[in-house]
Formats: sequence, structure tokens, C-alpha cells
Amino acid sequence: MDATPTDTRYAAGAAYLDGAFMPIGEAKIPITDWGYRRSDVTYDVVSVWEGLFFRLDEHVTRFRASMEKLRLRPRETDEEIKAILHRCVALAGLRSAYVAMDCLRGRPERGKPYHPAFARNYVAAFAIPWVSIVDEEMMQKGAHMIVADTVRIPPESVDPTAKNFHWGDLTRAQFEARDRGADFAILTDGAGLVTEGAGFNVFAVTGKRVVSPHRGALEGVTRLSVLELCPELGLEPVIEPMSVEALRGADEIFMTTTAGGVMPVSRIDGRILCNDRPGPVTMKLHDLFWAKRRAGWLGTPVDYAAA
Amino acid sequence: MDATPTDTRYAAGAAYLDGAFMPIGEAKIPITDWGYRRSDVTYDVVSVWEGLFFRLDEHVTRFRASMEKLRLRPRETDEEIKAILHRCVALAGLRSAYVAMDCLRGRPERGKPYHPAFARNYVAAFAIPWVSIVDEEMMQKGAHMIVADTVRIPPESVDPTAKNFHWGDLTRAQFEARDRGADFAILTDGAGLVTEGAGFNVFAVTGKRVVSPHRGALEGVTRLSVLELCPELGLEPVIEPMSVEALRGADEIFMTTTAGGVMPVSRIDGRILCNDRPGPVTMKLHDLFWAKRRAGWLGTPVDYAAA
Repeated sequence: MDATPTDTRYAAGAAYLDGAFMPIGEAKIPITDWGYRRSDVTYDVVSVWEGLFFRLDEHVTRFRASMEKLRLRPRETDEEIKAILHRCVALAGLRSAYVAMDCLRGRPERGKPYHPAFARNYVAAFAIPWVSIVDEEMMQKGAHMIVADTVRIPPESVDPTAKNFHWGDLTRAQFEARDRGADFAILTDGAGLVTEGAGFNVFAVTGKRVVSPHRGALEGVTRLSVLELCPELGLEPVIEPMSVEALRGADEIFMTTTAGGVMPVSRIDGRILCNDRPGPVTMKLHDLFWAKRRAGWLGTPVDYAAA
Repeated sequence: MDATPTDTRYAAGAAYLDGAFMPIGEAKIPITDWGYRRSDVTYDVVSVWEGLFFRLDEHVTRFRASMEKLRLRPRETDEEIKAILHRCVALAGLRSAYVAMDCLRGRPERGKPYHPAFARNYVAAFAIPWVSIVDEEMMQKGAHMIVADTVRIPPESVDPTAKNFHWGDLTRAQFEARDRGADFAILTDGAGLVTEGAGFNVFAVTGKRVVSPHRGALEGVTRLSVLELCPELGLEPVIEPMSVEALRGADEIFMTTTAGGVMPVSRIDGRILCNDRPGPVTMKLHDLFWAKRRAGWLGTPVDYAAA
């Protein structure tokens, strides 16, 4: 099936908003909507690579779980949400895409109690051209990371397993990274344990052990994929508490995200890892991840006829 | 000056968005904007009552301080922001209004680094008819409050003195309140100290002492006003750590917010205060607050000719 967009209005991307499809530039949130005004919203992101959604069902299942945790109940079923995502990608005619799905609280109508229980929740979605959060140059040299002073919002306040836009701490940490000449920041829980960064999970490799923090972070789908691939390379996937010292002392560090896959880190707080280059275990996982993706691993073909 | 709107398109409210004025229903945020997508935004709210802004300069000064804390630098000066707020109220022809000002991060253009430092920040604002978060019935009987299990996002993660839309904890606590048959929830810092609720500050009255928590909460302008009014009534304004026990054991409890002024609480976790009615000190402060407001205290007349 051809992926050429039939309508150039969708060249920059296609969106769905509460029942209607539109070019991405027309998809906008009312300034009074609590989805914006209280960040009362959850979301998920799935990637499309060479015409295939990656782990689509799992993303939609996680999206539904996030909605339930926040008591968001839109009219769309899971099957309808999948059909919406297919149509967004098809309308935009994208072979590779970053595909987002949001569920917003809305806002109670005038006269109803001023409480989130009385708002009509609704779904938005969009597909835009895929862009990695690390560019080719950074993939070659490895990213420079710092451990931020800013502390991750704790699970007792906002549940990180319900994907959310509460990025104030992550944004603050991004400025810390820039101020210290680094590319990315990782946040702790304030008690010496590593959590996550701005939209990415972190891994520390020591010997054959490939470790990801046990709590305080989103349970990323790319993270899960890496954990699953480890045995194929004779590596041991481990989920356990990760201290800042363990991270700083690791042989290798890498990040995972839907918009980037496996991304190498070559410096942590100025300390040079692996001769200032991506580590060998990291690159083996990177290469295997993309080889599997190209081979159709856990892929769902985009229904380009849905446009 | 007459406050009748000259244009019925603005009857529901008037807005300003990045340079243009429009009816409130047309003021919308792009779904890809980080102001929504990362809640990378700050805001402030000022009230207009009977044709007068209340403490307008202080709200705009606090708004600027919030922007600086988050490194948000829009093109509008403080004087321009004030003129925008006057014009929003004048366009909508409102004698009493809830007037919001936001500054959003925006999003880096394609090709620029994917970092908030590279986005063009911009201002939005709007004026809509004034509605209190407590209705007349609740003013008569007093609100029912609970101490939530959800913990307030700590200052080490997100600075509460830069007014923000990170309301996930506050929203969760609002559902806790509803589940327990109450109207409002107050959040603690997780270590037994009281912070704030969803958009309001809290006060505990014991004898002549009128106490507000010292940290972990927004430094509300209505809160400040109440602290300033205390001496006129022979009361002692106190800012100090407030334990949950001190709150539960208080003679009276009340809340303050821009959208509501001074609001009585008659129950805390089921315990009845003051015969299940608003307390006498609370009502004295309430009455004095509104008498001063009506008399023009710290008021700036809306320039209705600005429409």
C-alpha cells in the first residue's frame, strides 16, 4: 500500500480531536480546558517505522490503564482508538511517524459542580514525521549526561506509571544540563536513587548486567523491549534500585525512548565512559533492537487505506 | 464608564493570544505546544470586582517573577500585560471578572535543538465572568474538608511559588474528597505538615491567632490580604509550620483564593467546627475583606475605554 498523502494539507501531520480529523496545525486545546489549565490529561506515544506500528496493542492497553488511574473515561473504545491512530498516519502518508494519543479531562459545563468528576472527557491524537531526540552526531559520539539537583516528582504525589505532562521537574533539569554543558539530565528520588529523565528511561551496564531502576519512572515500552532482548545477547536484564553511585560507576550507560530507541551516553557528570564513545554492549542492543524492528518484530502494518 | 460590551461575540469572555484579541471560544493552544504537552507554562489570576482590579500591580509582578523562575521571556512588558488585561475585561464588558494571564514555553522550530531554551515564549490572557469556587449554599453552611492521603508535589521538584498547572496531586485529592463525601481536600508535605489545596490557601484560627502554613504553598494574594487585615480586628497574623494535628484541633478553618475570597470550613475529616457553621472570626475577616474591596481598597479602575 502506498503511503503518499492524497491531500497536501496533511503534509505536516494529521490529527484527531474529539470526533473530527484535521491537519495538525488545526488541532488546538481550548485555553480554559482543564487538560491544559490543570494538566489533567494522560497520553501515550507509539512509533511507526517503515510502515509498522511497534507494540501498538501494548501502548493502547497502557493508555487505557493510565486513563483508568486518573478516572478519565472517553467515549472511544480501544479498537476505535487504534483505528484513529491508523487513520492519522494514513492521512499524513507517513512511513515513519511519532504518534501520540491524549485523553483530556475537559471542563464541567456552567451550572455543574466545579469538580473534575463532572467534566466530559475526550480523546485527541496525532501523527507527525518521526524525529529522534538525539541526532546522528550524538549517536556517534554519545550523549553527555548529568545527575540533576532537581528531584523527580514522587509517586506519592503524581503516579509516574500514568503517563503525564507534569514535566516541571524534567524541564528544570534540562536547564541544569544545559547550564553545565551537558545534553541530558537524569533525576533522583531525593534519597540517592536514580529515576528517569525528560521522556526517557535510563540503563546502567556493568559486566553482563543490564540494570534499569525499579521505581519512580515510567515503565517504558522501549525499556521493556531492551529487557526482553538481553538474553539473546547473553546479557542479564535486571530491575532493581539503582543508586547514583552505581550509575556513575557503570561500564556503560544508555537511554531508551519511543522517539529514539536505544541512545548511548558517553559522559556522566564529566566522567568519561568507554573512551568517550558509545559502549559495545549499548551498540549491540541498539543494533539488535533496530534489526528486529526492521524484521517486523511486534509490528502492526499501518492501514494506509484508512485515509 | 459603561461596561456594556459593544460586541456580543465577546459575551462569554475575551482573550488575547500571542498578539491578537479574540472571543474566549477562539483562544486555543496548539496540541504540540510544550505549554500543554509538558505543562511548561506559568500563570496568574487577578479578580475584577465592581469595576476594580484587585492588587493588579502585585499580580503582574508575581507573574513576572514566576516567568523569571522558569526562564520564560515573552516579548510583552509588564505595562503591556496590564494593558492587555484591561482590554480583555473591557471587550467582554465585565463588571466582575476572573482574569487570567499565562506565559507558555512554545516549542523549538524544526531544525533547532530540542530543548526549551530554543522555544519562543508567548503570553495569553483572558477575562471571563467571575464565578466563586464555593456557591452561596456552601458559604452559608461552610465547606467540608478532608486531609488527603495524596502528598503535595514538593518544592524540590516543582517550585510552588511559581504558579503552575501541575495539578495532578490536587486533582487526585479532589477525587479523594468526593469519595469521602467532602467538598475540598488539603494536602500535606508527606511529613505531617499542611500545605495547600486545589487553588486555595488554608488558615487555622486558634484564639486570636490566624495561622497560615510557612512553606509548600503558593504565596496567595488573598492570603496576604487576610494577613494584612488581621490587626484591624485585633487578630494576630502568623506564618509558621502547621501540623495536621494543629489544623484538626483549630477553633476555625477557612480557605482563601482569588476566585472566592475568604471561604469558611465547617468540618475537617468529619469533625464538626463551630456548631457546623462558619466561624465568627472567619466571617469577620470575610466581611471586612469584602467591605474593603467595595470601598476600593488596592483597586485599579478597569479602563473600559480600552475596548
